[in-house]
Amino acid sequence: MKISDLLPQYRQEINEGLSKIYSSGPDSLVNPIQYVLDGTGKRLRPLLTIFSAESCGGSKNNVFSAALAVEVLHNFTLVHDDIMDKDSIRHGKKTVHHKWDDGVAILTGDAMLSLALKLLNENNDSSYTQMKIFIDGLLAVCEGQALDKEYESKSIISIDEYIKMIDLKTGHILGLSAELGAVSSGANDEICKNIRDYGCLVGRAFQIQDDYLELFSDSLNMGKSLKSDIVLGKKTFLMIQAIEKNKHEINDLLELAKDDFNLGLNKIRSFMELSGIKKNTENEISKILNVANKKINKLTIDKSKILYFSEL
Amino acid sequence: MKISDLLPQYRQEINEGLSKIYSSGPDSLVNPIQYVLDGTGKRLRPLLTIFSAESCGGSKNNVFSAALAVEVLHNFTLVHDDIMDKDSIRHGKKTVHHKWDDGVAILTGDAMLSLALKLLNENNDSSYTQMKIFIDGLLAVCEGQALDKEYESKSIISIDEYIKMIDLKTGHILGLSAELGAVSSGANDEICKNIRDYGCLVGRAFQIQDDYLELFSDSLNMGKSLKSDIVLGKKTFLMIQAIEKNKHEINDLLELAKDDFNLGLNKIRSFMELSGIKKNTENEISKILNVANKKINKLTIDKSKILYFSEL
Repeated sequence: MKISDLLPQYRQEINEGLSKIYSSGPDSLVNPIQYVLDGTGKRLRPLLTIFSAESCGGSKNNVFSAALAVEVLHNFTLVHDDIMDKDSIRHGKKTVHHKWDDGVAILTGDAMLSLALKLLNENNDSSYTQMKIFIDGLLAVCEGQALDKEYESKSIISIDEYIKMIDLKTGHILGLSAELGAVSSGANDEICKNIRDYGCLVGRAFQIQDDYLELFSDSLNMGKSLKSDIVLGKKTFLMIQAIEKNKHEINDLLELAKDDFNLGLNKIRSFMELSGIKKNTENEISKILNVANKKINKLTIDKSKILYFSEL
Repeated sequence: MKISDLLPQYRQEINEGLSKIYSSGPDSLVNPIQYVLDGTGKRLRPLLTIFSAESCGGSKNNVFSAALAVEVLHNFTLVHDDIMDKDSIRHGKKTVHHKWDDGVAILTGDAMLSLALKLLNENNDSSYTQMKIFIDGLLAVCEGQALDKEYESKSIISIDEYIKMIDLKTGHILGLSAELGAVSSGANDEICKNIRDYGCLVGRAFQIQDDYLELFSDSLNMGKSLKSDIVLGKKTFLMIQAIEKNKHEINDLLELAKDDFNLGLNKIRSFMELSGIKKNTENEISKILNVANKKINKLTIDKSKILYFSEL
């Protein structure tokens, strides 16, 4: 079956699985959890777990709970991050803390995490190793978010520090999503390691692309996200380069954007183009995805599906 | 060795263990986590895990990581609950969200949860069962806290609803603390079940005692906690009975306490004494602890240490 036919089918199964994981409990948990999981997300992480398993000869059914677990883990991080970042909209929908309140959102995240763990631990044969991969990833995500918040109040961050942060915050979950698929299919250590690295690198590229689209896409959602990032002083891949090139100019443009968003945005876009930062960022994304592809291409596994993530 | 000599020694070992679980990572996580765990708490939950193991022929060393895990789990719930309840002081120390901010406190709790899971998963032989007990307990705590918050805005709660809520919020963690000690020592199902029930009942008695002391103790910490509960409209074991006895009178007294705390408190105390609610609450605590003791006394295990928790 072609991957373009497979994706909607798998997504539908994932969405159905997610809709069933928590239906009885206090209303103040059931309602926001179903609201969060009833999304129209791309479900990239659970797809990565499933495709990774299938590439190693495993089956979708065998990793389905783990696939749901990584999606719930990802959504847990979004619910808590949105409180910290005071974001009121995500993917066009009100965030949980905005629709309900901070307390509901904190508890919703906590309960989602326990549901993710329950899913992963569902099979009696879910191993120590799988749980370790998941728990280490959870700590990494917290550390990444902690660094992200710490960086907001620092005037200068190096690209290396930024890469470390996004690897923790974004890369690790994609890495563990891929690794869980391989591990649970009994792949050997070398394959598991390379599939994990692939996931991490794809996550790194996604995050940089997200920084890029936030600035250059005309979608309303991206615009809102950009506004909030400017207010918080978020260090993105493009902003870090801009600060290195001309700190005073970019800071003036950011201040301008706080007063007149559209004028500021246009001037920031011009600055990024003229200084070569736009082109440099496009090149960097391609470079990372190339390295990611190499991790898979050298393996003797079925590559037909897993490479989908680096072709996006 | 007498239990009075053993307790400070075990507590010191627990405190040393806790001080080592997270020392490298982002400052905004390391500092608050060490701050939270560097407490002078009674460490009842890890002691319960250890005593439960020893009562079943297990050893402290074998359950030490699990014991630390339950203490970290407990502290995770406190950090998040304090944000939701807007409490600025706990046990005489500033709460994390008050000393730092909400974002730091959310993330500190999340990271602590991952550290608790890491501790529990530390031993390769930590079983599916232990992880299941822990994860189910985590979800129960979230559900208990959700009900607690839902009850704040309800005018009438029954004693049964209240017991369900505190069993989830407080009983389950003490129940799982006890059960983990028994399970990891290879005790049979009947012993594990009764030891778990013992822990749950002790937790129920503790929570009711906490409600009682909040009103009748003269400690400054309890007074602060009472003030915050009155503002939030918290349903405690005593308040629920008071509402059943005379809704209008107790509501007037609560309003009075918001204006003049000491005058209101004295009048609420008199109401609780004259209406028999004070005595009834004392009796209820004794009754629950008696049932708890019976759960242990019928078992053929070493009872010398574990019964300590129902003698407090």
